[in-house]
Amino acid sequence: MDVTAPAHRLSAAVSAASRLLPARTGLRLRAGAAGLTVAGVAPDLAVSFGCPATTHTDGSVVIPAAPLAETLKVLDTELVRLVVEGTRLALRLDNARFALPLLPESGVASDPPAQVSEVDGAAFASALRVVAGTAAKDDPLPLFTGVRAQSSGSRLTLTASDRYRMAVARLPLSSPGALDVLVPAALLSEAARQARGRVGLHVGPGRFGVSWQGGLVATAVLDAGFLSEDSIPSGAVDTTVTVSADALAAAVRRVGVYAEDRRVLTLEVGDAQVRLASARQDTGEAEEVLKADVGGGRTSPSFQARYLLDALAAFAGERVVLSIQPGMRACVLRAAEPGEVELTYYLMPMLPR
Amino acid sequence: MDVTAPAHRLSAAVSAASRLLPARTGLRLRAGAAGLTVAGVAPDLAVSFGCPATTHTDGSVVIPAAPLAETLKVLDTELVRLVVEGTRLALRLDNARFALPLLPESGVASDPPAQVSEVDGAAFASALRVVAGTAAKDDPLPLFTGVRAQSSGSRLTLTASDRYRMAVARLPLSSPGALDVLVPAALLSEAARQARGRVGLHVGPGRFGVSWQGGLVATAVLDAGFLSEDSIPSGAVDTTVTVSADALAAAVRRVGVYAEDRRVLTLEVGDAQVRLASARQDTGEAEEVLKADVGGGRTSPSFQARYLLDALAAFAGERVVLSIQPGMRACVLRAAEPGEVELTYYLMPMLPR
Repeated sequence: MDVTAPAHRLSAAVSAASRLLPARTGLRLRAGAAGLTVAGVAPDLAVSFGCPATTHTDGSVVIPAAPLAETLKVLDTELVRLVVEGTRLALRLDNARFALPLLPESGVASDPPAQVSEVDGAAFASALRVVAGTAAKDDPLPLFTGVRAQSSGSRLTLTASDRYRMAVARLPLSSPGALDVLVPAALLSEAARQARGRVGLHVGPGRFGVSWQGGLVATAVLDAGFLSEDSIPSGAVDTTVTVSADALAAAVRRVGVYAEDRRVLTLEVGDAQVRLASARQDTGEAEEVLKADVGGGRTSPSFQARYLLDALAAFAGERVVLSIQPGMRACVLRAAEPGEVELTYYLMPMLPR
Repeated sequence: MDVTAPAHRLSAAVSAASRLLPARTGLRLRAGAAGLTVAGVAPDLAVSFGCPATTHTDGSVVIPAAPLAETLKVLDTELVRLVVEGTRLALRLDNARFALPLLPESGVASDPPAQVSEVDGAAFASALRVVAGTAAKDDPLPLFTGVRAQSSGSRLTLTASDRYRMAVARLPLSSPGALDVLVPAALLSEAARQARGRVGLHVGPGRFGVSWQGGLVATAVLDAGFLSEDSIPSGAVDTTVTVSADALAAAVRRVGVYAEDRRVLTLEVGDAQVRLASARQDTGEAEEVLKADVGGGRTSPSFQARYLLDALAAFAGERVVLSIQPGMRACVLRAAEPGEVELTYYLMPMLPR
C-alpha cells in the first residue's frame, strides 16, 4: 500500500471512526482507485468512512487507531504519505517519519444492510439530540438504553425513555420505507451528530444502519421489546401552562440551588403565573415568580430540577406548553408552535417533600 | 444589615474569595459607609475583597459561601438587596427571594501584615504562572510545594522546584523592600491570577500577603528551609541549541505520541539541526528533524516529553536557548532575548532508554 492523502481529511475520517468504535479497536485502511477507506470492525458493529486520496499502490492494512489519530491531529502539513514498510505502516512527511506496527487481519465486515428509507440529516440529528438524551446510559434492562425508530407512512417516530421521562419525536421521511427497530442510543446519537445532508436508513435481519455522504455505521439491533408512548396515560390533563422555556429554565436553575439533594422543586401554578419554590436545611430557601399563560385549575406538581432542565432544554428558544395531570401522572411538554420535528416530552412528577 | 449592591460585582467578589478559601469556609459580609466587604477566615489564611454598595443599615453576617456564589452567578438582575431577616440573610429581587441561614460568628481575622514592597501585577502573574507551575502539587516535603519570594535591592526573585525541574524568575520591584519567604504555591498562584495593577507585598512575623485594588490575601508562610538555584551545577555547558520554543514543542508533541509510558524522548543535537526520536513496542516509532542554531559539540540528552513541554510553554512565542551539560546535569533554558521578567528554567535529563 502506498497512498497520499490530505492530512486534515484523513484525520477527520480516523477521528470519526474512532468515536464510533470501542476503545482499542484496530482500524483498517484500504487504498484503491476510489481513494482511501477507513473502516473499523467490532462485534456487531461496522463503521466505514471515505477519504479522498491519490493511490500509488493498492493495498489494505490494519493498524492501532489511537496513535494514528493522535499523530494526525497534531500534524501541521497539508499532505501525508502512507507507505507499508515491512511490518510497519510509515507516515512520511518532508522532515519527519512516523511508523505504526501492522496488526493481524481481523474479521471482514459483512455487507451493510439495504437502504430502506431516507431522512434529512439536520432534522434527524436535532430529534436524536433530545430523544437519545432521555435513554438511560446504563440500565439492567437494555430496553431503556435504546432508541426505537419506527416508520409509519411518510413519518419517522423516534422514542426513548429511562422510566422517569420519555421523549417522542416525529419527523418527515423524505423517502418512506418500513422499519421498526430498537437501536443502542449512544451509538445512534454519535452517528447522527456526525451525519451531514441526506441520511439513509438501512435495515437487514437483526441489523440497522445509517449512512451519509462518505460515512456508514451499521449495528446489531437490541432485541428487547419496544417502547411506546401509548403506555403513558395522558387523558387527564386539567391544567396547561404556556411559558418561555428559557425563562422557566433560568428560574429553575436559580431556585434549584436551594433544593434538597434530589433537588426537587415545586411549580405552584396560580392565576397567570407560576411560582417556583424550594427549601433546604443548610442552604436556605428560595422562591421566584414567573408570568405565564395558565389554563385550567390551580395545582402544584414537584419535579427533580435536573430532569425539568433537560426537558426544557429540548424546547430552548421556544414557548413550551406544559400539560399537567393530577396525581402522579406524567406532565406532557410540547412546543407552542411545533416545527418540522414534532417533539412530545413526558416527565414524571416527584412526590412533594 | 441592609445593603444594595451591583449583582455582578458582588458575584465577582464572592467567587474570588471562594477560589482562595478552602471548601465549606463561611463568608463574612460586612456593610458600612465604604460599601460591602466580602471576607473569609480560615486557619492561617485571611482573604478580603471590597465591593461597591449602598448601605441602608450597617451590619455583619457569616453565611455559607457555596449557595451564595451559585445564586449570584445565575442572577440576571442589575442590583441585589441583602437584608437580615431573623436567622436568615435574604437576597431580594423584584420577583424572587433567596434566603440563606446565618452561620455562627467565627474567629476574627488579625490585621494584615505590613506592606514592604510593590511589584507590577502583570509581570508578577506572568512570572508566577511559570514558577508556581514547577512546584509539586503534593509532596511529603513542604519545601517542594512552595514558591520562594526573595528581594535583593530592586529585584524580586521567585523560585520553585519539584526536584525534577526548577524555575527561577527575576523581575523589578517598583518599590524595594526586604523579604525572603516560602509561600504555598497554589495559593500564591491563584492570588497572582486575580491581582490587577500594582501589587503590594506584605510581610509580618511568620506571615506573607499580597494586596491589590479591592483585594487582599494573607497566609502563614511555610517553615521549610529555602530553595536555591546555587544548588544546581551549571558550569559545564558544552552545547547550546537556539530554536523557536513553539516549533520544538509541536515536534515534541508529535514524536511524544510514540514514546514509552514515561514518554521519554531523545534530542539528538547535530550540525544546525535537532533530531527528535522515540520508539515504543505497540505504537511504533517516530522521528522528526528541526532546524536550529547549534553551538558546541554533538550530544543526545533524553527528557520526559511532559516536562520538556512544560518548560517550552514558559517560552511560548519566543526563541529559547537550551544550554546542555554532559551526563545527568540539568539542561538550562533561557529566552534568547529576555524581557522584563528574566526566566531561568532548569530541567533534569532522564536516563536514555
